[in-house]
Amino acid sequence: MVTTDLLIIGAGPTGLFTVFEAGLLKIKCHIIDALPQAGGQLQELYPKKPIFDIPGYPTINAGELVDNLMEQIKQFQPGFTLAETAETLTKIDDDWFEVVTNKGTVHRARAVAIAGGLGTFSPRKPEHLENLAKFEENGVEYFVKEPEHFRNKKVVIAGGGDSALDWSIFLSNVASEVTLIHRRNEFRGALDSVEKVQALKDAGKLKLITPAEVTSLHGDTHLESITVDAGGEIREIETDFFIPLFGLTPKLGDLANWGLEIEKNAIKVNNALDYQTNIEGVYAIGDINTYPGKLKLILCGFHEATLMCQSVYNRMNPGKKFVLKYTTVSGVDGFDGSRKEAEKAVVKKID
Amino acid sequence: MVTTDLLIIGAGPTGLFTVFEAGLLKIKCHIIDALPQAGGQLQELYPKKPIFDIPGYPTINAGELVDNLMEQIKQFQPGFTLAETAETLTKIDDDWFEVVTNKGTVHRARAVAIAGGLGTFSPRKPEHLENLAKFEENGVEYFVKEPEHFRNKKVVIAGGGDSALDWSIFLSNVASEVTLIHRRNEFRGALDSVEKVQALKDAGKLKLITPAEVTSLHGDTHLESITVDAGGEIREIETDFFIPLFGLTPKLGDLANWGLEIEKNAIKVNNALDYQTNIEGVYAIGDINTYPGKLKLILCGFHEATLMCQSVYNRMNPGKKFVLKYTTVSGVDGFDGSRKEAEKAVVKKID
Ligand SMILES: Cc1cc2nc3c(=O)[nH]c(=O)nc-3n(C[C@H](O)[C@H](O)[C@H](O)COP(=O)(O)OP(=O)(O)OC[C@H]3O[C@@H](n4cnc5c(N)ncnc54)[C@H](O)[C@@H]3O)c2cc1C
Ligand SMILES: Cc1cc2nc3c(=O)[nH]c(=O)nc-3n(C[C@H](O)[C@H](O)[C@H](O)COP(=O)(O)OP(=O)(O)OC[C@H]3O[C@@H](n4cnc5c(N)ncnc54)[C@H](O)[C@@H]3O)c2cc1C
Repeated sequence: MVTTDLLIIGAGPTGLFTVFEAGLLKIKCHIIDALPQAGGQLQELYPKKPIFDIPGYPTINAGELVDNLMEQIKQFQPGFTLAETAETLTKIDDDWFEVVTNKGTVHRARAVAIAGGLGTFSPRKPEHLENLAKFEENGVEYFVKEPEHFRNKKVVIAGGGDSALDWSIFLSNVASEVTLIHRRNEFRGALDSVEKVQALKDAGKLKLITPAEVTSLHGDTHLESITVDAGGEIREIETDFFIPLFGLTPKLGDLANWGLEIEKNAIKVNNALDYQTNIEGVYAIGDINTYPGKLKLILCGFHEATLMCQSVYNRMNPGKKFVLKYTTVSGVDGFDGSRKEAEKAVVKKID
Repeated sequence: MVTTDLLIIGAGPTGLFTVFEAGLLKIKCHIIDALPQAGGQLQELYPKKPIFDIPGYPTINAGELVDNLMEQIKQFQPGFTLAETAETLTKIDDDWFEVVTNKGTVHRARAVAIAGGLGTFSPRKPEHLENLAKFEENGVEYFVKEPEHFRNKKVVIAGGGDSALDWSIFLSNVASEVTLIHRRNEFRGALDSVEKVQALKDAGKLKLITPAEVTSLHGDTHLESITVDAGGEIREIETDFFIPLFGLTPKLGDLANWGLEIEKNAIKVNNALDYQTNIEGVYAIGDINTYPGKLKLILCGFHEATLMCQSVYNRMNPGKKFVLKYTTVSGVDGFDGSRKEAEKAVVKKID
């Protein structure tokens, strides 16, 4: 069982920055995310794209912003439960909440911050494949969680966008054989990625079958081969893994059944104070919440997280008066014993 | 007369970032600030100090953050009225406001954003000097607005902190003679600055009189000399300028008489929607506003500015439906004809 002060659901920019603001108030955090990595939409949907409206950054790539946030929070040592979806939320007693994931991991916390963005990202699946469910986690994967998993294995990737291109490139160095299948001849992605795939194909390091579609999966308990229809020509291909990368759609998911007030596919909060939901001690911040005038922007999540942390502090320290300290003036004391501080002024004689 | 869409009072981080968010909505901005430079508290009080709680910056110096904000907004070509204090606010008609400064500059705008921080910074004055007022702007200066003003002149600086040290160092290269006077032997500031002053003094490039105090000012219409009491020894020093740098105290000032609801030395706003004040079309954002749970932090001003701009947009474009566009997806079109955008995806055949 994971025990913490503030449990954060969602490791997008909002959830990550929460760890920093909570840390300033000596509140410990643990984050759950359905994705195998931190960064939310930024890391999953547009890691290499520039953002122009992060205050103080005329431009910054989404992936770099995530890296910077991870660096900024590291001294507060957040815990992570990655690649698991928060499925249930239960109020244990006046002080504690319990959140259990789809893998059965139990988390207990004094307060819960739902920073779930647009919800969990669910892969668009090739539902037309008859025995798809049988092979899920037995050869069919929708994410590349751990590239080492594919070391010296045969892999078939399907898709025509950035993910399919980028993972084909990456795995061509890891897997024993990579085959990329797409139902059209054209791929849509960064010029650089398209050119790299072309080069790998020309060098014989990657097989390309287009226009083509996977029509059936075969194997005893684990995937062993697939059937491909390449413009009428039917081929059987031996493979250990089939990774269809047809994009992700966000789904609010189980959150919708937690007794929270939902409006426009988002959680209603008290934006006039602390972004608390209708359940005391449960907050919703970032893209997942809604209120009059709400803007689904990264910089808004940062502010919401900051105000929320004050409320969590008051909840955990009833009656204790809070005094705002500037980081510049007071420095930042990490839970790992580190300290960041401004150079001290000296008082020194000049003679 | 200056005419603009949105008039911003205060060029601190909040006022500056407002220009960006307004620009995204095609709203033109003009900024008034009492200080001779942009950056508010960051530039005036702690330009060389690190801030640790700007989201996405594990650490950034205050001055650098201001530079980055100036860079981020430059394509929206804000106008500036610097070194002037906004003194009066008048509603001309349903569409226009008028703001006049202490120097008589008239500004007209469709909406006004007060981003005045803690108010205007007023210098702490050596009030004990009898004819101080007579010499103000005739040899007595509280800010170094334009260093060239002091080229080849004799300058006496008084004070024992960072400003006194830093301007002594800077002007020692501009003025014909710099004398630094302080009522103690010890100076309080960055080690580097204290050491530089020591070195300049040792090299004969700067005169130091400590412990000492200026006791009177002399001159016909312009300052010609000052009397200094150096631990009992009375000295007369010829000088063109006397710059007492005893720190700044913020004052709400004339803002307090604009008919705005004031609470705790700050302007009450509707934080549940758009940070509007009790006067429709007049907003207050950043340190200058107050509401339940308010935190005087830079990152909060950014969010407040962003939500406010939506409200200004609605005011200026009644009935027009607003659709949020991500900068990453839509790019940023500057008023100067520039365009920032993400690299486009290509659709390309691989064969
Ligand atoms: C293409 C694109 C361009 C964009 N450009 C900009 C821009 O220029 N500027 C800007 O400000 N914004 C932009 N955005 C929006 C920005 O990405 C979002 O505002 C931001 O990601 C919201 O952050 P968040 O932390 O609230 O949520 P998210 O980033 O969505 O992260 C939420 C996380 O919660 C996880 N999660 C949800 N439910 C559960 C659950 N039950 N259990 C476990 N995990 C869960 C999800 O897996 C996800 O990782 C853009 C978005 C897209 C798609
Ligand atoms: C030493 C110190 C350390 C700090 N450290 C941090 C930190 O680590 N993190 C953090 O988030 N915050 C910190 N702060 C607070 C931060 O500086 C403020 O929150 C921030 O400056 C507020 O920005 P603003 O734009 O609202 O106002 P300001 O920066 O105060 O700017 C307001 C501007 O408005 C001008 N103005 C006011 N009235 C008028 C008028 N009538 N006419 C013309 N001009 C006018 C003023 O001259 C000023 O330039 C610190 C502050 C100090 C003093």
